[in-house]
Amino acid sequence: MARRADYLVVHAHLFTMEGTGVGYLADGAVAVRGDRIAEVGPTSRLRSEFDADGILDACGCAVLPGLIDAHMHTPLAIVRGVAQDVAHWMQKALAPYSRHINPAAALAGTRLNVVEALKAGTTTMVDYATPLPGWAEIYDQIGVRARLTPTINALPPGGMAGWKLGDLYPLDPAAGEAALDAAAAFAAGWHEAADGRITVMLGPQAPDMLSREQLLQVKDIAQRQGLMIHMHVAQGDREIDQMLQRYGQRTPAFLDDLGYLDDQLLAVHLTEATAREAELVAQRGARMVLCSGSIGIIDGIVPPAHTFRSAGGLVALGSDQASGNNCSNIFNEMKLTALFNKITFRDPTIMPAWEVLRMSTIEGARAVGLGDTIGSLAAGKQADLIVIDLEVPQLSPVLQTPIRNIVPNLVYAASGHEVRDVMVAGRLLMRDRQLLTVDEPAVLAEARLQAEAIAGRVAADPVHAQLALLEPMAAGQL
Amino acid sequence: MARRADYLVVHAHLFTMEGTGVGYLADGAVAVRGDRIAEVGPTSRLRSEFDADGILDACGCAVLPGLIDAHMHTPLAIVRGVAQDVAHWMQKALAPYSRHINPAAALAGTRLNVVEALKAGTTTMVDYATPLPGWAEIYDQIGVRARLTPTINALPPGGMAGWKLGDLYPLDPAAGEAALDAAAAFAAGWHEAADGRITVMLGPQAPDMLSREQLLQVKDIAQRQGLMIHMHVAQGDREIDQMLQRYGQRTPAFLDDLGYLDDQLLAVHLTEATAREAELVAQRGARMVLCSGSIGIIDGIVPPAHTFRSAGGLVALGSDQASGNNCSNIFNEMKLTALFNKITFRDPTIMPAWEVLRMSTIEGARAVGLGDTIGSLAAGKQADLIVIDLEVPQLSPVLQTPIRNIVPNLVYAASGHEVRDVMVAGRLLMRDRQLLTVDEPAVLAEARLQAEAIAGRVAADPVHAQLALLEPMAAGQL
Repeated sequence: MARRADYLVVHAHLFTMEGTGVGYLADGAVAVRGDRIAEVGPTSRLRSEFDADGILDACGCAVLPGLIDAHMHTPLAIVRGVAQDVAHWMQKALAPYSRHINPAAALAGTRLNVVEALKAGTTTMVDYATPLPGWAEIYDQIGVRARLTPTINALPPGGMAGWKLGDLYPLDPAAGEAALDAAAAFAAGWHEAADGRITVMLGPQAPDMLSREQLLQVKDIAQRQGLMIHMHVAQGDREIDQMLQRYGQRTPAFLDDLGYLDDQLLAVHLTEATAREAELVAQRGARMVLCSGSIGIIDGIVPPAHTFRSAGGLVALGSDQASGNNCSNIFNEMKLTALFNKITFRDPTIMPAWEVLRMSTIEGARAVGLGDTIGSLAAGKQADLIVIDLEVPQLSPVLQTPIRNIVPNLVYAASGHEVRDVMVAGRLLMRDRQLLTVDEPAVLAEARLQAEAIAGRVAADPVHAQLALLEPMAAGQL
Repeated sequence: MARRADYLVVHAHLFTMEGTGVGYLADGAVAVRGDRIAEVGPTSRLRSEFDADGILDACGCAVLPGLIDAHMHTPLAIVRGVAQDVAHWMQKALAPYSRHINPAAALAGTRLNVVEALKAGTTTMVDYATPLPGWAEIYDQIGVRARLTPTINALPPGGMAGWKLGDLYPLDPAAGEAALDAAAAFAAGWHEAADGRITVMLGPQAPDMLSREQLLQVKDIAQRQGLMIHMHVAQGDREIDQMLQRYGQRTPAFLDDLGYLDDQLLAVHLTEATAREAELVAQRGARMVLCSGSIGIIDGIVPPAHTFRSAGGLVALGSDQASGNNCSNIFNEMKLTALFNKITFRDPTIMPAWEVLRMSTIEGARAVGLGDTIGSLAAGKQADLIVIDLEVPQLSPVLQTPIRNIVPNLVYAASGHEVRDVMVAGRLLMRDRQLLTVDEPAVLAEARLQAEAIAGRVAADPVHAQLALLEPMAAGQL
């Protein structure tokens, strides 16, 4: 007797990402029942075994697990493109804008960024932001998978007005306490919400932005509640300077002594980590997020992900933020990651296509703690998958033997708009490039309105005189 | 009395690329008459001055000069994706395939690559290939602008069977003579053809691939006929080794003594050039083509374009070839160029967005010798322009003041599929992403057929055992 399926995806170049490679299956099929994958196998067999309500014909297409963006700051999409090609990115470009992002603008930015990433095949978004009312609801409504991380820091709520470069940050324990409480409340409300599609991580912003005691409090809550910790680690020279001043230790050694370096930690960036420090973090079992595009644009640096992986660590890819990347597109991150690392080591064999594809699927899933749930196409896993049209010039021709060219072309030639259909938890969120759960033109229109209002506030704020990009504006270069 | 125009492009974010920056004009318009730009200015003025047959509404769009791809090997698109992530790219990956590219397959590759590049906004293609009958006709028919360069070398026509790594190449003067004659005949037939849209360059393949005497012959013909020379220069360690063995000189010094380093030379790659050598080539007035994606993938190297430009040289961008890039997309090259150079110098201010945009428009036009004809939007120049839809998530929101974000987003967030319309020499070749002068599905279908035939011939050829990618195929990584 035929088994029931809600969808049968058929005739695909199927990349299951099971096993140690890409798990290719020619003329493959995926049966979906409810929010899960019921079966994966040859189209002919699944056609005969399943009675499906909907057929998704993937002939001429590649089908992959949905991609994972392991580190985003979605509100900043509202000021996309105002912070690149400058030194002192934060102070001289982003901050004069970001201080004028009010809650409505932040939510418009999140909607915009989720739509952008979804259209490029990202199905799991690990977002790091202030837990505004309405933030998690966006993910709930649009239907993508989210790991939400409310910001926790102890910086003075009124700003850093009196602070001078080189001074220790004026940590405010009450501010840290409030942020910690807000994060705990957010976790109580949203962890494992939307049938498990939305989960929560704890997000101490960086080891220099709250006290040692409050870092330990975060760790304690994380352990008791089984939450991962999502933190910027060794993200810049200013952080390292703060750590040396305050504790006489660089970040990795400090975190190791604190008991932070374990598989509960998702360590973002490691921009300033030495090779030895990257190895230490990896060997302790912590996971790394590599944001190639963002750190390339902001710092001109390639973080030590190759060393981290060589030491046995798991690496996921992240897009960081649109002001200083300037896009949230895992196809972009895969290509940049492969190429930046080849260049760093002057070796074309470093980080081949299949490795970066794993970092954005199964390895990324394991890194963010969802390896049992997503990241590959296998019976029992969540039905998060994308259908990619290969019948476009830049992915043509498809060759199968003696060398199959699909994976290299997906990494080096695709740009994300080849993604035709997106399914998350068994629900189609995009079909034939049309979003089904969100009004895309309305999202763009709202983003434009909010951004124009921000631009007006920035122009009226004397601090905008600090903007480094005023000079190229005046020179007619923008 | 109103002036006549064939087209009026209106309401654009216009980037004319005139002057020293990007030449921005808000609510700009372009009047096109015949194959030329009649006028550029504010929409309101051109609307009142011109009576146009066709209106192209570019509201919400950026309009730029068509992009220039200054170095392509279009036939190799037929084996896209078989040559990356390997050492010894040529011998261990490409050669076992390329030897089976017959003329029909080569032409199918050219058609595919032209379609791919055109859809990504490239309007001028500087193609380097064997001058097969039918090659130039593809450009003639599709209507893009082309600088065609027939390959000239003196390698034995029967192949390099007896040659061993480390030996001098067995140059065959008769083969060089035949290639030179064929190139001269091709130039006689196609230079300034199609109303000047198709022009020819002379293409000695590399300084080690024909004799000193034949290099001088090429230079002599180039000077007499007013043709540029398009040559791979310092492209690899094998070339440098050949030059040292044969002449006791590295390539730049050799070419300088030979009188090759002048503004007639388009020097491709300079992968192995030292900073001092790059400066020498630039100071002599020769132009450089930088193929960031290709050299990144093939060699893991960033060529010295920043040094070359700092020494006053002109740099154009090139996509090289699809087997080992793996795409021909100048948006891709702009982004990789900006980022690779930031990383090389560990400095986020190096090669800002506006500089790489100039390299693919006005600076690129000057580099390939067409600076008076194309590369910017100005009255009297050829009407080569592209309309880019900014109302897509990855390019939203558009900000105007105090900082305009369009150019950085075009470089760091666009991928080329945002190009909506393409005009070359006053003729629309693409409108609303539909190609008007070529049957895209037929091109893809023919490419697939030819590629499958090549794959069959490769599989039947014992030489395929040399393929480095057989190992990842066996390991399930492709």
